[in-house]
Amino acid sequence: MQKFFAQIASEQNRKRSHLCVGLDPLPGKMPVLLNGQSEDVLSFLKNIVDSTQDLVCCFKPQFAHFAAQGLESELQALILYIKKTYPEIPVILDSKRGDIGSTAQMYALEAFSRYGADAVTVNPYMGGDTIEPFSEYQNKGIFILCRTSNLGAGEFQNLKPTGSQHKLYFHVAIKALGEWNRQDNIGLVVGATAIEELRELRSHFPEAWFLIPGVGAQGGDLDAVLKWGCQSLGSGGGIVNSSRSILYASAKSDYADVARNKAQEMQQKMATLFKNT
Amino acid sequence: MQKFFAQIASEQNRKRSHLCVGLDPLPGKMPVLLNGQSEDVLSFLKNIVDSTQDLVCCFKPQFAHFAAQGLESELQALILYIKKTYPEIPVILDSKRGDIGSTAQMYALEAFSRYGADAVTVNPYMGGDTIEPFSEYQNKGIFILCRTSNLGAGEFQNLKPTGSQHKLYFHVAIKALGEWNRQDNIGLVVGATAIEELRELRSHFPEAWFLIPGVGAQGGDLDAVLKWGCQSLGSGGGIVNSSRSILYASAKSDYADVARNKAQEMQQKMATLFKNT
Repeated sequence: MQKFFAQIASEQNRKRSHLCVGLDPLPGKMPVLLNGQSEDVLSFLKNIVDSTQDLVCCFKPQFAHFAAQGLESELQALILYIKKTYPEIPVILDSKRGDIGSTAQMYALEAFSRYGADAVTVNPYMGGDTIEPFSEYQNKGIFILCRTSNLGAGEFQNLKPTGSQHKLYFHVAIKALGEWNRQDNIGLVVGATAIEELRELRSHFPEAWFLIPGVGAQGGDLDAVLKWGCQSLGSGGGIVNSSRSILYASAKSDYADVARNKAQEMQQKMATLFKNT
Repeated sequence: MQKFFAQIASEQNRKRSHLCVGLDPLPGKMPVLLNGQSEDVLSFLKNIVDSTQDLVCCFKPQFAHFAAQGLESELQALILYIKKTYPEIPVILDSKRGDIGSTAQMYALEAFSRYGADAVTVNPYMGGDTIEPFSEYQNKGIFILCRTSNLGAGEFQNLKPTGSQHKLYFHVAIKALGEWNRQDNIGLVVGATAIEELRELRSHFPEAWFLIPGVGAQGGDLDAVLKWGCQSLGSGGGIVNSSRSILYASAKSDYADVARNKAQEMQQKMATLFKNT
């Protein structure tokens, strides 16, 4: 197991938690403080990090939420803050990149050098040669979109290629966890809203790492996710992301405490999975 | 035909050119000037724009090449420069985004509001609901990755779904140009290195717009691209992108003139297609 996943496993065991808090700043959703002013984006995110850091196995800033507002320096400062203050907590940059090899090299530089992220999400549509510029960073983690959490996810992902008993997302899983995984640093993105697919993938890939978004605002069922996504036979497991339902649980100055309570509710359910370890 | 494609068609007819110059700044590839210094990135790109503007139907900055180097303000300044100096030339932001609806809204804001691009490239793997936040900007153009130009493109794109006579990329084309195209502002990305697929797609979608990368450094054949990709029965056509082979044709202070010569060579081949119009 490579460095990134070893770090995730260590954090999960230490904190008895599969929780990843997604850090998605939304314009117009910053809490209103006691003085009537909106909270500053970077202070907001740092406070969320501080109030949940002992409950999470990682953090996941989502790129678009920064880029839409021109907040690249805040994204950089946020990741640096996490690295300096909680060096044991890995950071996944959720940017779902995908481009030809020479361009993918630029995206890998962006994620790993410029922002200092420990892992990145990548889109598989363009094929394995577009994944390699990321996966050759052997200490980093690469999550390949497999079966996503959105309503229209099945439109192509659930098509079944001729002569195969499996759907497209399953073919992606086979490539991602097999041929593409020479550095042993690849996991899958599997949405919490696709429980049947999650169950099937876990039964075929009992040792793999899954990043599971879609619990919370998107409606994924945490119990089913924990049952099918998180328990693995080997060193792998599940990373359960929740963003909006934690970040924006309160629109007032108590937001950090309320976010902590929401995160703790989830972590306490997760802790039961660790009772025999 | 919506505003973006009407603008492309007008530029193509006026300049007798299908050429799009890709604006991809590469670290360490800036030309060396007479004073021995490397050219500044923004000056380099502005000079390329100035020296090729009368030969192109659009420009296409590639996002990763800016993001890897922290050049967001240069990207913004470059697009603003094109808009102010050559307001008739559309700009495609090539960022190949793809994410759940609420996040796709943020990416659409990034491309169209923050950067002021006229069109964007988008990845279809996650399905139609992830395209809609872009396509609902009816004056903008949306290019859906269909059959890409890289070596491994066929790995999933060429899988044939059960019961279909067509491959995955063709299913993407059907959705993109049909069901998803309510605003009549969607085109396809089809690589110049996939001539058979380009031919098949053109024969089935004779009026569609194709953005065709991969001529030049990637080895696509311009004659075949012009024959199969660019001639259409209707208002559509082809946009032929070349980046590195124009931008970096000279590593010295004459780079803008040499880039113009390279662009002109391509444009002159293209002009023959317009002889009867």
